[in-house]
Amino acid sequence: MHNFVFHNPTKVLFGRGTLAALGSETLAWGRKALLVHGQGSLKRNGLHGQIMDNLRESGIEVIEHGGVRSNPLLSHAREGVAKAKAAKVEVIVAAGGGSVIDTAKAVGAGAVVEHDLWKFFTGKRGIKGTLPVLTVPTVAASGSEMNSGMVLTNDQTREKFGFGHRLLHPKVSFLDPTTTFTLPPDHTAFGAIDALNHVLEFYLTTTGANTPVQDRLMEGLIENAMTACTRCLAVPHDYDARSDLMWTAALALSGLTAAGLGRVGFPMHLIEHSLSALFDVPHGAGLAVVMLGWLRVHRKDCAPRIAQLGRRVLALTEPADRKATDQTLARLEQWLRSVGAPTTLDQLGISAADIPALSENTRGLARIWRLREYSPEKVAVILQACL
Amino acid sequence: MHNFVFHNPTKVLFGRGTLAALGSETLAWGRKALLVHGQGSLKRNGLHGQIMDNLRESGIEVIEHGGVRSNPLLSHAREGVAKAKAAKVEVIVAAGGGSVIDTAKAVGAGAVVEHDLWKFFTGKRGIKGTLPVLTVPTVAASGSEMNSGMVLTNDQTREKFGFGHRLLHPKVSFLDPTTTFTLPPDHTAFGAIDALNHVLEFYLTTTGANTPVQDRLMEGLIENAMTACTRCLAVPHDYDARSDLMWTAALALSGLTAAGLGRVGFPMHLIEHSLSALFDVPHGAGLAVVMLGWLRVHRKDCAPRIAQLGRRVLALTEPADRKATDQTLARLEQWLRSVGAPTTLDQLGISAADIPALSENTRGLARIWRLREYSPEKVAVILQACL
Repeated sequence: MHNFVFHNPTKVLFGRGTLAALGSETLAWGRKALLVHGQGSLKRNGLHGQIMDNLRESGIEVIEHGGVRSNPLLSHAREGVAKAKAAKVEVIVAAGGGSVIDTAKAVGAGAVVEHDLWKFFTGKRGIKGTLPVLTVPTVAASGSEMNSGMVLTNDQTREKFGFGHRLLHPKVSFLDPTTTFTLPPDHTAFGAIDALNHVLEFYLTTTGANTPVQDRLMEGLIENAMTACTRCLAVPHDYDARSDLMWTAALALSGLTAAGLGRVGFPMHLIEHSLSALFDVPHGAGLAVVMLGWLRVHRKDCAPRIAQLGRRVLALTEPADRKATDQTLARLEQWLRSVGAPTTLDQLGISAADIPALSENTRGLARIWRLREYSPEKVAVILQACL
Repeated sequence: MHNFVFHNPTKVLFGRGTLAALGSETLAWGRKALLVHGQGSLKRNGLHGQIMDNLRESGIEVIEHGGVRSNPLLSHAREGVAKAKAAKVEVIVAAGGGSVIDTAKAVGAGAVVEHDLWKFFTGKRGIKGTLPVLTVPTVAASGSEMNSGMVLTNDQTREKFGFGHRLLHPKVSFLDPTTTFTLPPDHTAFGAIDALNHVLEFYLTTTGANTPVQDRLMEGLIENAMTACTRCLAVPHDYDARSDLMWTAALALSGLTAAGLGRVGFPMHLIEHSLSALFDVPHGAGLAVVMLGWLRVHRKDCAPRIAQLGRRVLALTEPADRKATDQTLARLEQWLRSVGAPTTLDQLGISAADIPALSENTRGLARIWRLREYSPEKVAVILQACL
């Protein structure tokens, strides 16, 4: 096991009805709040009114910053920073999917500095403080509600960059599975694929570390991301299934899975970010396609890990690694199809002719994330395997 | 899944060499420290000197409170409170096993109030603050280094009580597996059995909750507590094995396993506490015996869970629950013997004639822990099954 620091101070209130404490928990951090939300679903399902009432009943003044879109934009986060500074907000409440939470984190970090917040993402400036952020996730996917990461897309440069810092942990997160009951099937699946991929990235790319504690944890989360998703699609109001998916997604990128693995990276996310940056595909849809391409390219050098995944999670009994690897890939692809996810670039409206631009677009983030082995040439090989 | 609050703010620095940061991390909490330790092993293995040097080099004044024994005593914790108050210490550093860490927590909570600290344990007073505690565990066992619990024995009343409060989480814990290299085989095994039992208590007593996320997590920890222990006994200086056991023990009672299970309890710990209170047996040794008796008594009503444990963790293929349950019990007993643990009361020097006093001794804690179904009569039945 490699050395590590594990520190996840986010307080999680999990279950139906927990939102009743939103006002009192927010008040512990400030009396003037910026409520960050998305493009209308919060109002349609009644959650917006509930949150506003709850905050106001606790005597909290609320300024709104709605309109966050999926693959959230830097320009919109900048507007949020301007609002937060002008109104001198003391605390931020994010209610929505990962895009909303990431925007709230970016606003929180940007609101306490004079320079532009994009400098955090390009590594030019470090984070030294942030406004406290509380979250109400309405999608089980990014895990941003319980981690220190955030992702934004620079709409001028078409760069989708991700960044992590310990100060970005939300103070409190309210995980109420009923908020995901009305999430459409495709986005339920895309969310589960995001959570699944967060575990797979580390599970497949760790090398040389003897980590049976983490392996069992990761295998459990992989199994649950898949089975809970399937159950949510079958019965969208299944509280237990929505709960399992929500808690799985939160734990999947909470720092627990990476602790002790040594150097881990997000090569599949790297490539997906370019798909989203240039073609605005949903993150989970892009990941479904990239994941399969990555696995095809790495089926030989990652055979022992892929085979272990198949045996431990998918109940394969094949003893030979190479055959078990092939079976695991087939089963994963079959599961992705079963939940309605795309499995080829073509289904995302992307063709072979787009691969050079996509590969080139990964260059900047590969440098910042220190994924040196992921040259545009290597990325192109993986994207070819996604066709 | 039941509603829950999960909040574990302890910062963990894991791995060899991490102790170098003890001084700087302690200094963030205070300049005058009480160093709590045990009965000499810290001095024998050189850790005491290393810690003292490290703290003093950071400009921290150190007052010592050594001599904590296993099954730590209330009277000794009271002495620690008096020392902490007299010297106006600002921070506590605990270096040792779970007994040392629990004593440090008790001193930390007792030092900021005027009343006697036993009132926390009997539920007569609540905790409203505590001195910050940093820990350097040298045994993989109690998980106290990453949780909010503490256990003390009242040497006047012969009551061994446990108590938990969110403010009792250590601020920072330094988990260096090399500190456990010289732990004797019996105490290595007793520690692993404690960690194993922390998971089994919840895994076996949860009822009615559909919790596949937690189940997979618990099964992974059970598997690792057993296999890592066996590896540590075979090669005491195996860094990976010691790491696996140390991280397993920390996670085993970190709040993660209980999150979402609903009401869980520690019935096996309840009974073991009386064994320790009246006969001063090592905690893990007592648990090994009690665990088997508890399982024998509950083999019918807990058959589905015990059988699941056997199939998921011990690779049993038996489809009938009752047979799989019998096989699981046999395998657990076999493993306990293989690591040198006692499996009968007799091996602890306890006879059938002692059962009435032991059963009666559980009454107080059963009331405080609200384990109403564990009457002295029921406890006696379980103890009979431990003979």
